[in-house]
Amino acid sequence: MRVDFDEAIKFIYAHDNYHILTHQSPDGDTLGSAFSLCAVLRKLGKKANVLCSDEFPHRYDNMYEGYQPMKFMPEAIVAVDVADSKLLGRSLAHYSEYVNLCIDHHISNTEYAERTLLNANASAACEVMFELYEKMGVELDTYIASCLYTGIATDTGCFKYENTTPRCHQIAAELMSRYNVPYAIINRKMFDVKSKDRMRIEQYVMSNMEFYFDDRCSMITITEELTKDFGIELAEFEGLASLTIQLENVEIGVTIKQKSNNIFKISMRSATTADVSAICRKLGGGGHVKAAGAQLTGTPEEVKRRILTVVGEALGYDLWLV
Amino acid sequence: MRVDFDEAIKFIYAHDNYHILTHQSPDGDTLGSAFSLCAVLRKLGKKANVLCSDEFPHRYDNMYEGYQPMKFMPEAIVAVDVADSKLLGRSLAHYSEYVNLCIDHHISNTEYAERTLLNANASAACEVMFELYEKMGVELDTYIASCLYTGIATDTGCFKYENTTPRCHQIAAELMSRYNVPYAIINRKMFDVKSKDRMRIEQYVMSNMEFYFDDRCSMITITEELTKDFGIELAEFEGLASLTIQLENVEIGVTIKQKSNNIFKISMRSATTADVSAICRKLGGGGHVKAAGAQLTGTPEEVKRRILTVVGEALGYDLWLV
Repeated sequence: MRVDFDEAIKFIYAHDNYHILTHQSPDGDTLGSAFSLCAVLRKLGKKANVLCSDEFPHRYDNMYEGYQPMKFMPEAIVAVDVADSKLLGRSLAHYSEYVNLCIDHHISNTEYAERTLLNANASAACEVMFELYEKMGVELDTYIASCLYTGIATDTGCFKYENTTPRCHQIAAELMSRYNVPYAIINRKMFDVKSKDRMRIEQYVMSNMEFYFDDRCSMITITEELTKDFGIELAEFEGLASLTIQLENVEIGVTIKQKSNNIFKISMRSATTADVSAICRKLGGGGHVKAAGAQLTGTPEEVKRRILTVVGEALGYDLWLV
Repeated sequence: MRVDFDEAIKFIYAHDNYHILTHQSPDGDTLGSAFSLCAVLRKLGKKANVLCSDEFPHRYDNMYEGYQPMKFMPEAIVAVDVADSKLLGRSLAHYSEYVNLCIDHHISNTEYAERTLLNANASAACEVMFELYEKMGVELDTYIASCLYTGIATDTGCFKYENTTPRCHQIAAELMSRYNVPYAIINRKMFDVKSKDRMRIEQYVMSNMEFYFDDRCSMITITEELTKDFGIELAEFEGLASLTIQLENVEIGVTIKQKSNNIFKISMRSATTADVSAICRKLGGGGHVKAAGAQLTGTPEEVKRRILTVVGEALGYDLWLV
């Protein structure tokens, strides 16, 4: 059932002991939503914990460092920025059918929750959270505002991407001027700082990138062997797909990640008007126009050929044969 | 003489034929200010040209592609985002003493112009331009708004850096909602796209970076030989200094660029609270707390040693000797 802000607020005020669920492979938006909500609920004298199937990534330590889980039996389950109950991940899967309220901004939300508060025009779930707290009349503080700022900034690539809205700029202005958010420190941590390991990987990727169709398609392959050789934690391999469309002229960037011997996870990015969601559907996958994916089985050569065939087709190389 | 908006507007309305000057090595802010002003003046039926000592960089082609210089004798000279007449560069140096109005946001403005409209709290000169057009009651259009957006975005690192203000977020929101600025396309061009040459340079820099003082200082050296070997236009070498502080733990990043046989241009960046302006003053240079520079003469070894001595001192390595 879709609910509006008033109904969501009524629900929130009516309960006292909250488990707040985030999606697996947590990002700034799900964590910013969850930790801000946790702080708001505790401010109101309620009990609340933040739960996640995976560990909180190091870069979000400002959100979780001061956080202490409380001991209590949950009475209400709220999921934030979780579009599908499958995304709760393995260790939260038992909550799938018991989410009382989901607060989200994904148009693809499957409405698995009892109540869904959805604003598909919001750039980030944290934008919805901000409106919620405003409507609740809760006075925020620097910590809560920083959580919200982090969510909005990370989901929009620091106000860079298409999904950035005038509204999220206005909210950023509010958070900065009213609550003294240390935005420069947050942004440096989210967008500018790299570990030495990450730098090594990026160097590898950049120097081993392959180009096809007059440089209009770029491709990187991360083999299982490579990830082992690097001896680097898997989290450092996240987000490499965006590197494939950094080069001028590249229209479609492909990342092939070997999951096991003959299973490959494909991530595709579009730098222009090319619809990679349509391309990935041909490979049995799907996603958004500018970012999509698929999973393929076969030898590395077979997988590469299948990808290049559909990408070549999309770029108008009809007769291209490997 | 410092002037306020009203006096600047009175001046603008009182004249008809404008030369608009930008600073050398032009960036998005000086060009966004100049091209927006040029379009506004022409809208008002006046004649105006944009002048620059250097070529307009390729990435700003959306600003200059539709622009046609006009033929006329100038009656009024306006400089935008030019803090010091020296920054006009060689081919505009003859204007140094004849600037009638300077519109700027640098607190260091030398007030070389007859009239200076300065807002040192603005994140970018384009922020001042926006206020000016608002006060003039000029109706903007997508082109003018895109120039202003580009200036604000480039000067703040896409709303990432310390100099970002709530006001510039509000202006971004206005420009996006009222004038349909293609912000995602602009941002991709300004921040995400690289040429193959640029990628080669970055790869070189990243793999040849040196580390000192427990990785708290990083250093890259761009020799004359290297720039020749690469066979790459010099503009591609701009902005490398920011790469030095990308690595976590690095507090001070040093870029050494060989200008000629024994002359080296030093750029220093601070990732934390270290004051690189103070460090560079010890080398005869200066600048801002987080970004400063100096010029040194000597052999490469001598230059490096002098730099490491003052950096080591600043980081508390008192007894460090090369």
